[in-house]
Amino acid sequence: MLGTIDREINIRPLDEQAMEDARARLDSLSKPLGSLGRLEEYAVELAGIRGYTGGALEKRAVLVFAADNGIHAQGITPVPKSVTQTQAICIAHGRAGVSVLAAQAGAEVLVYNVGVELPINDPSIVYAKVMDGTNDITQGPAMSREQCERAILAGYDAVEKLGGCDVIGLGEMGICNTATSTAVAAVLLGQQPEELTGRGAGITDAHFERKKRAIRKAIETNKPDANDIVDVLAKVGGLDIAAMTGAYIACAQYRIPVVIDGYISAVAALCACRMQPSAGTFMFASHRSNEPGHAVVMQALGMEPAFDLRMRLGEGSGCPLMFHVLEGALRVVDDMGTLEESNVDAGDLVDIR
Amino acid sequence: MLGTIDREINIRPLDEQAMEDARARLDSLSKPLGSLGRLEEYAVELAGIRGYTGGALEKRAVLVFAADNGIHAQGITPVPKSVTQTQAICIAHGRAGVSVLAAQAGAEVLVYNVGVELPINDPSIVYAKVMDGTNDITQGPAMSREQCERAILAGYDAVEKLGGCDVIGLGEMGICNTATSTAVAAVLLGQQPEELTGRGAGITDAHFERKKRAIRKAIETNKPDANDIVDVLAKVGGLDIAAMTGAYIACAQYRIPVVIDGYISAVAALCACRMQPSAGTFMFASHRSNEPGHAVVMQALGMEPAFDLRMRLGEGSGCPLMFHVLEGALRVVDDMGTLEESNVDAGDLVDIR
Repeated sequence: MLGTIDREINIRPLDEQAMEDARARLDSLSKPLGSLGRLEEYAVELAGIRGYTGGALEKRAVLVFAADNGIHAQGITPVPKSVTQTQAICIAHGRAGVSVLAAQAGAEVLVYNVGVELPINDPSIVYAKVMDGTNDITQGPAMSREQCERAILAGYDAVEKLGGCDVIGLGEMGICNTATSTAVAAVLLGQQPEELTGRGAGITDAHFERKKRAIRKAIETNKPDANDIVDVLAKVGGLDIAAMTGAYIACAQYRIPVVIDGYISAVAALCACRMQPSAGTFMFASHRSNEPGHAVVMQALGMEPAFDLRMRLGEGSGCPLMFHVLEGALRVVDDMGTLEESNVDAGDLVDIR
Repeated sequence: MLGTIDREINIRPLDEQAMEDARARLDSLSKPLGSLGRLEEYAVELAGIRGYTGGALEKRAVLVFAADNGIHAQGITPVPKSVTQTQAICIAHGRAGVSVLAAQAGAEVLVYNVGVELPINDPSIVYAKVMDGTNDITQGPAMSREQCERAILAGYDAVEKLGGCDVIGLGEMGICNTATSTAVAAVLLGQQPEELTGRGAGITDAHFERKKRAIRKAIETNKPDANDIVDVLAKVGGLDIAAMTGAYIACAQYRIPVVIDGYISAVAALCACRMQPSAGTFMFASHRSNEPGHAVVMQALGMEPAFDLRMRLGEGSGCPLMFHVLEGALRVVDDMGTLEESNVDAGDLVDIR
């Protein structure tokens, strides 16, 4: 069971034999031991997840969860709430950042409306709405515990219903969701929220001050229990973060490699790992976010992003770039020649540059 | 003229109008201003190089220059020299790290023998040999000035003879070329060579101490003139580094975006920029190398790598991964929808996450 959620969770550990086979294969290849660095680590982790060495990432998808946040009422951003709706549609129509990067990587993008306030009547967006955006967390809980569980389940079921996928990336769309992410991260990590709050992409000093005050007030008002993830998400989180949390857990359950995008995606990954500690072994961190909280969350996850392109778009836009890297790891383990074929003694190759 | 080398060099500056057009296009897209970070910078630089916004990177190539180094006689590595020959063949036969990553990125790999000591009779490797490996730089110059100019020219001509390419990556194969790279970098940057010398991928303490002493001795013996790049390359460099230097300059001359791989590739980029300062505007740094000298060279170039996969293979293996990133930058500028299409006011989108 996933808490009180009606799904049987039984995450099997990584396949040690497959990982050992992958390591042996990597060490037999025509290169100095370990010289392909994290590509080799990724190949081993992918083997552990999938149960075999190599193979390709054929079916690829980025799942984007869209929802509004009641904290918007606190005047913490100049961006109107309506942009959540507009941009969710833009993503689904293939015209957003994540859309074009996913297309380049041969990945499908699926958008889930888990709580956009304005109505969306667009058949290209999956309707999975729990409520019309959350309540203002400075005044009380974002949502009820039951609503939070439904949001988690919406994310879980999104993955389950895909019916198999070789790699998934998780993204979001929701104005003010860096604020809710910071509230969740501060509670889970026992940090001062002000230390984790970012300036956004152009908010004024006044917005920034209000944002910090609002996050602190939300935590003080709701007093979430850091040991109860559903409580934290329900009180100071968001529907998008909750859905992503469920999606991460489903990826672990169904043994699908899952890529973390930026800050919000990382906070949801942390929630998933707190609910199901072994879920982390199915995850891959893509890029470094500029949000100050991102590095802290990555550290808590024991992960390090693969690249730093100073992206701060969200939407899952970092995931497709990581798909190329992970596919590269598989090409290495599958397609390289061995030292034996090259007639090179393994001991001779230690220092090749 | 490229020094005393018989090629007319006239690098035109980046196309300011094309860059301005690219910036205007990027700012019109359905995303917060600048939120795709370095992808946007890459799109602008690519526009400046190519003279137009967007477009694809259709023809892609990695050029690998192979050569031996006389400093090998100083016992600075356990790897036999013969591995330069073996691995050059492995790369050309599609079985090395760079080969499989290039194949994944739809890029051709071309291997140039500019000075492998052992004979290579393989039609898949371009013969451009200047000499049978360099001389031991602890005893005197690596090569004559004339040989160095021929090596630079070999690299220059390799690019010229491609007859057009949308993006090129530059790699190398040559046992001991981290040592020669460090000697060149130390002279050019006025640094103590010991500060820049790396431990390699498994050399013993004894090898490492000999490596540091050998590099210092090479500089003291040859007294290269830091203001004369050909002198530095001829005295303490290598045929591979010299050829790559020429190749970078040709990429600038022919306005081809060129990707820097790891440490050796970066040192050659520095040489090219010292010979032709505007050559740097045609370059893109791919990954962070573990060699301590790499960060120093990157800083001197004013560049920051896009990703860090702890790769230390060389061969140009980081370049194909960067091709995906650069193509992503072009997909963004070409394929995303505009705010106008989405009916979103540009001012509203500043803080979307």
